[in-house]
Amino acid sequence: MTLQTGADLRELRERKPLVHQITNYVVMNETANATLALGALPVMAHAQEEVEELASVAGALVLNIGTLSRPWIEAMLLAAKAANEAGVPVVLDPVGAGATTLRTETAKRILDQAEIAVVRGNAAEVATLAGREAEIRGVESIGAEGSGAELAHAAAQALGTVAAVTGPVDHVSDGDRVIAVSNGHPLLSTVSGTGCMATAVTGCFLAVRPDAPLEAASEALIAFGVAGEDAAKGAKGPGTFHAQLYDALYNLDPETIDGRARANEAARVGQ
Amino acid sequence: MTLQTGADLRELRERKPLVHQITNYVVMNETANATLALGALPVMAHAQEEVEELASVAGALVLNIGTLSRPWIEAMLLAAKAANEAGVPVVLDPVGAGATTLRTETAKRILDQAEIAVVRGNAAEVATLAGREAEIRGVESIGAEGSGAELAHAAAQALGTVAAVTGPVDHVSDGDRVIAVSNGHPLLSTVSGTGCMATAVTGCFLAVRPDAPLEAASEALIAFGVAGEDAAKGAKGPGTFHAQLYDALYNLDPETIDGRARANEAARVGQ
Amino acid sequence: MTLQTGADLRELRERKPLVHQITNYVVMNETANATLALGALPVMAHAQEEVEELASVAGALVLNIGTLSRPWIEAMLLAAKAANEAGVPVVLDPVGAGATTLRTETAKRILDQAEIAVVRGNAAEVATLAGREAEIRGVESIGAEGSGAELAHAAAQALGTVAAVTGPVDHVSDGDRVIAVSNGHPLLSTVSGTGCMATAVTGCFLAVRPDAPLEAASEALIAFGVAGEDAAKGAKGPGTFHAQLYDALYNLDPETIDGRARANEAARVGQ
Repeated sequence: MTLQTGADLRELRERKPLVHQITNYVVMNETANATLALGALPVMAHAQEEVEELASVAGALVLNIGTLSRPWIEAMLLAAKAANEAGVPVVLDPVGAGATTLRTETAKRILDQAEIAVVRGNAAEVATLAGREAEIRGVESIGAEGSGAELAHAAAQALGTVAAVTGPVDHVSDGDRVIAVSNGHPLLSTVSGTGCMATAVTGCFLAVRPDAPLEAASEALIAFGVAGEDAAKGAKGPGTFHAQLYDALYNLDPETIDGRARANEAARVGQ
Repeated sequence: MTLQTGADLRELRERKPLVHQITNYVVMNETANATLALGALPVMAHAQEEVEELASVAGALVLNIGTLSRPWIEAMLLAAKAANEAGVPVVLDPVGAGATTLRTETAKRILDQAEIAVVRGNAAEVATLAGREAEIRGVESIGAEGSGAELAHAAAQALGTVAAVTGPVDHVSDGDRVIAVSNGHPLLSTVSGTGCMATAVTGCFLAVRPDAPLEAASEALIAFGVAGEDAAKGAKGPGTFHAQLYDALYNLDPETIDGRARANEAARVGQ
Repeated sequence: MTLQTGADLRELRERKPLVHQITNYVVMNETANATLALGALPVMAHAQEEVEELASVAGALVLNIGTLSRPWIEAMLLAAKAANEAGVPVVLDPVGAGATTLRTETAKRILDQAEIAVVRGNAAEVATLAGREAEIRGVESIGAEGSGAELAHAAAQALGTVAAVTGPVDHVSDGDRVIAVSNGHPLLSTVSGTGCMATAVTGCFLAVRPDAPLEAASEALIAFGVAGEDAAKGAKGPGTFHAQLYDALYNLDPETIDGRARANEAARVGQ
């Protein structure tokens, strides 16, 4: 495993991959702007009539189940299958899995019917999908059976995807190795949708490294975490932090980012 | 009536109640972020398959009719009934009541079919629901028959709820007493959705004081108004004010907020 | 042709016209806030049950096809016809025309079935509608057959509307004259939805000058471009620029804006 966040960020900005996002109403502007600030091109589209057309030409497809309804679920499945056929990597954000039956079942249905490269969620969401006990309040993780490196590892094995479990420290696993990323800042948890933005950024890096989802997801969390650290400077609360987060994504420096990464291969608990 | 904004804010931040919001597309991110900045946990969900599950475990339910369509109306009714059965207080924001038949009738239908703890709207919206003459341009109140304390009082009696009529001075009534709150700042009217945020904040306080909706609504408007005053400091217009509004909600100080409240029991005109 | 941006901005702020917008989920908050910051009153409504009621009393109707689905298309057609009957000018933003069949056909269908005063898009979108070759990646123009003054002129003739083609330099044509507007700032292209905001601002000016769509569209692009220039001062990236953009729209000075306009009648290539 070689993390090369700076090189991949540089390539991303040169290639400007199209990142097709079918995401929730709450964060649609925010994930589009995070994608654009980082250097990729977002396109948000959910109509069943057009999602296959877009997903199949995109660099990556992002599915986020934050404000579901039936027509959107069908669109996500259509888009995921089209992406799979075209070799376009898919990242899934199972927002609120465990909080309602609809969300849990939809996330499982997408995982069953399509090939997902990366699942990015909080501990309760990922634990729920891995068949473990978890407690979630709305979309906030309260607790999960297992945590950190062990949870990411077990979820990756259970789901057959890369699992990225974010929190104060993020853990990314392909079911074999586990990467711990401790970049970030506490203010990230005071803004709604920063998890969704991390998922969108994961899609951006996947577009550049479609064959290395473990690395792509880890680099995305490094980049997003470093941006969070930069955005916190001078922020007086969630609002100014939020505005500065886009500045920070835009100003991420490929030259210095690898030196700022706090990532390492984690020991796997219980192995 | 005892207003204890500081104490209730402190309890809100300790308990972090879940506030389920079925709200309009325009402000969904904004009300989620206001809720989170204040210290509660927002969850936005509108699918008929999941709203009952969420509303029945929430601390409060917020219904906002700002961008209606038929499936959302049905979801609001389902959620309100589930909230009522579970003893979860419901706040209604009748955005644009009086502007179109759909909105007026939907607000009335919700008031008829569910028990609403608080209706929070501008003068024209509340007057329309109370059966009075009112003029509204889009979602902006132009004029209403009666105003201020008298309107809030009459509306509360007509609707059988607490009525919170916001404007340069806010008036909150349970049909008996009337509280006037004059916290706030003119820049609040230059940002779209600040009324909707005030409604979300009302839901947050209702989650802490479900049995005292007059006090909860008054405290919410004090807290939101004080935050508006803080956000205006150094703001150069609606954009920087908007960002600073989340900072201000996050930084509201339970120790000093009661001393900053400009609230008093109002004389009732025409009584 | 007489451009009088300052005078029209002053009138806009005095009259506060209602601008009904049926727009995409990504930018709904942003275009509402841009409209409000400029001085007009936004109303966002898409239900087929209420769009005719609102469109017919509005000062202008804005249609934006950024996140389409079937019910919204029908609502746009209903609203456009109601606006036409009431003499309310309509501006169309064909977001992503050329990127998917649904979007191209929907934009054409709206142009066929309703009278559109102004089409505001990027070069690829407008070229697609004018029947030319164009390349678009998601919603980003990559290339178009013809460009600048010539494209705007040809599109206006082909579509029978005023065509406003925005880019580093904007070109607005009624099929006869062509106005080039070079106000603006590169940071505008780093924020998602600034094109959509330019369309909303076009709707605001159309509400003031319904009989002069060439002038209204040109003045809107001058006003939005000058605001972009002001917003860039002190901005550290897309996030602070975005917040400052609303400040700048709010603070636009009718006294000085005409002196800051960089607009002139362009020579038409190929004529």
